[in-house]
Amino acid sequence: MASEDTPDHRPAGAPDAAAPRRGLLAVGPPGTPDWLVDAVRDGGATVVPVDRAEGLLWAHPDDPDGLGQVVAVHGDSLRWIQLPWAGIEPYVRVLDHDRLWTCGKGVYAEPVAELALTLALAGFRGLPTYLHDAPLTERGTIGRNLHGASIVIVGAGGITDSFLRLVAPFAPDTTVVRRRPEPHPAATRTVTLAELDEVLVDADLVVVACALTPATKGLFDASRLRRLRSDCWLVNVARGAHVVTDDLVDALREGSLGGAGLDVTDPEPLPVDHPLWSLPTCMITPHVGNTATMARPLLAERIRTNVDRWIRGEPLLGAVDVDAGY
Amino acid sequence: MASEDTPDHRPAGAPDAAAPRRGLLAVGPPGTPDWLVDAVRDGGATVVPVDRAEGLLWAHPDDPDGLGQVVAVHGDSLRWIQLPWAGIEPYVRVLDHDRLWTCGKGVYAEPVAELALTLALAGFRGLPTYLHDAPLTERGTIGRNLHGASIVIVGAGGITDSFLRLVAPFAPDTTVVRRRPEPHPAATRTVTLAELDEVLVDADLVVVACALTPATKGLFDASRLRRLRSDCWLVNVARGAHVVTDDLVDALREGSLGGAGLDVTDPEPLPVDHPLWSLPTCMITPHVGNTATMARPLLAERIRTNVDRWIRGEPLLGAVDVDAGY
Repeated sequence: MASEDTPDHRPAGAPDAAAPRRGLLAVGPPGTPDWLVDAVRDGGATVVPVDRAEGLLWAHPDDPDGLGQVVAVHGDSLRWIQLPWAGIEPYVRVLDHDRLWTCGKGVYAEPVAELALTLALAGFRGLPTYLHDAPLTERGTIGRNLHGASIVIVGAGGITDSFLRLVAPFAPDTTVVRRRPEPHPAATRTVTLAELDEVLVDADLVVVACALTPATKGLFDASRLRRLRSDCWLVNVARGAHVVTDDLVDALREGSLGGAGLDVTDPEPLPVDHPLWSLPTCMITPHVGNTATMARPLLAERIRTNVDRWIRGEPLLGAVDVDAGY
Repeated sequence: MASEDTPDHRPAGAPDAAAPRRGLLAVGPPGTPDWLVDAVRDGGATVVPVDRAEGLLWAHPDDPDGLGQVVAVHGDSLRWIQLPWAGIEPYVRVLDHDRLWTCGKGVYAEPVAELALTLALAGFRGLPTYLHDAPLTERGTIGRNLHGASIVIVGAGGITDSFLRLVAPFAPDTTVVRRRPEPHPAATRTVTLAELDEVLVDADLVVVACALTPATKGLFDASRLRRLRSDCWLVNVARGAHVVTDDLVDALREGSLGGAGLDVTDPEPLPVDHPLWSLPTCMITPHVGNTATMARPLLAERIRTNVDRWIRGEPLLGAVDVDAGY
């Protein structure tokens, strides 16, 4: 077998575009869907059994034992392993420094950012009202532009990156709120969480896109919601517990904010008889920021790109920080 | 009066930034809303009675006799007249070659393009279903990305310009369909109306944004709707009569297209008992592509910009082609 005939002892992660075996990649475990195999081929690789391969796409979301066995047997020749998922917690104990590891991080932010923009536009343009009461709604009375809006985005991760890119043509004034004071390059300004209360009062739109931590749990409680203008929309595509649900119900009932677009709720799923369902200025989607259907073409694109880069000896996208475990 | 003491016989439209009276502008007729007067001042002008003014903002949407009288008396000194509206049909008989005329054309395309994107995103992401049946909808089963979509846009005017700008970050494949073969600079490709049937079959999204003419009336009839893929969304922000309503009802009932987002209908308004209202894949907004609330800040911005440019002697936006009458 090629891998035994010509063992490859170059350091892991050192690109060498001239290597003859670079284009030989394996896909596992058995049963991996065709579209993932196709993505590897579309990137320019020849799909071969793992004993002849220099790299591996491991497509199972949660089979660290299976991958561990493959690495134990063929690890000497596998110089790159691609995991398709962004959350690779199940595989942390298999990660090592003997090869390059990549994952799907960044890929899944785009659909979530799209949904955040969808909910924002739908709210601004009055869709909840029109879809419920359209025949009876007076013409021309509802809705306003997102163009030129003041937008506060809580969090500075991949969703925020994508959202700022999608919203840029609307010429908004954007404030990113994050833990560290490091400015987000695509935002009008960046402030820390300590300044959240100050920036909320001028917002037309607030997008919650941060990780759930002790510092952000219950961030939008009654006192914070009261700081929002009565025409401000709140969009949450992060985690339900960022918002105190009962306080949001009160605020929406009082009309102290314009409305809410929620892809996540607390509790989740929301009980069928929960009051949020019946509030006319609340739009709820059931955690569909990133569905399998949406992720598939984006993931295929990422894998194609990485295979192509691997063959050319270029840096790969989504490199895992092995010590950090993500 | 100043206009009689120092008659100004420079050719109309010849900018001269050094002229001392350039910053003196009038606003009429009496009763013009403050925000329009403020926009003139914000542009750097001093608002003066028309007999001392070198330029005029005429803000009434339909008072050609009033404007005609002002021009008859003060026309010698009025070197620029700004009409705020894009459709200036009522004023065609007052237009002349003795001064520069500008209007609001281009200003109103942006809100309409925003609504087109709103309806497209809402359709793609399943909002009609979620807003009606959310508590009962299975998680994660509905919705797809606009990212990378194949979009056909019928028409190549201001709405299309704005829409292409707003949708660009979604990395779409865009086909503009227009009368003349002249390529739209922001589209992936441009084809003529004769090629419409060919390009429809691959579309994820069709946006109707063209003028209503004999060539486009009933453009989307049963045979054209049948060419659309069963997951394609049709968005109409132009005129209701571009689509044959009964044929659309049939297509939506059969599920032969994904859904429709309509800001315009035929008839309009749609009767309260019309079948379109009850179709779950149809979103209808009551011709709110551009409401007064939306237009106001955009129009104020246009007027500010033009006043500033006028004072600096720079070319103005929205110059009227006097012979063409628009």
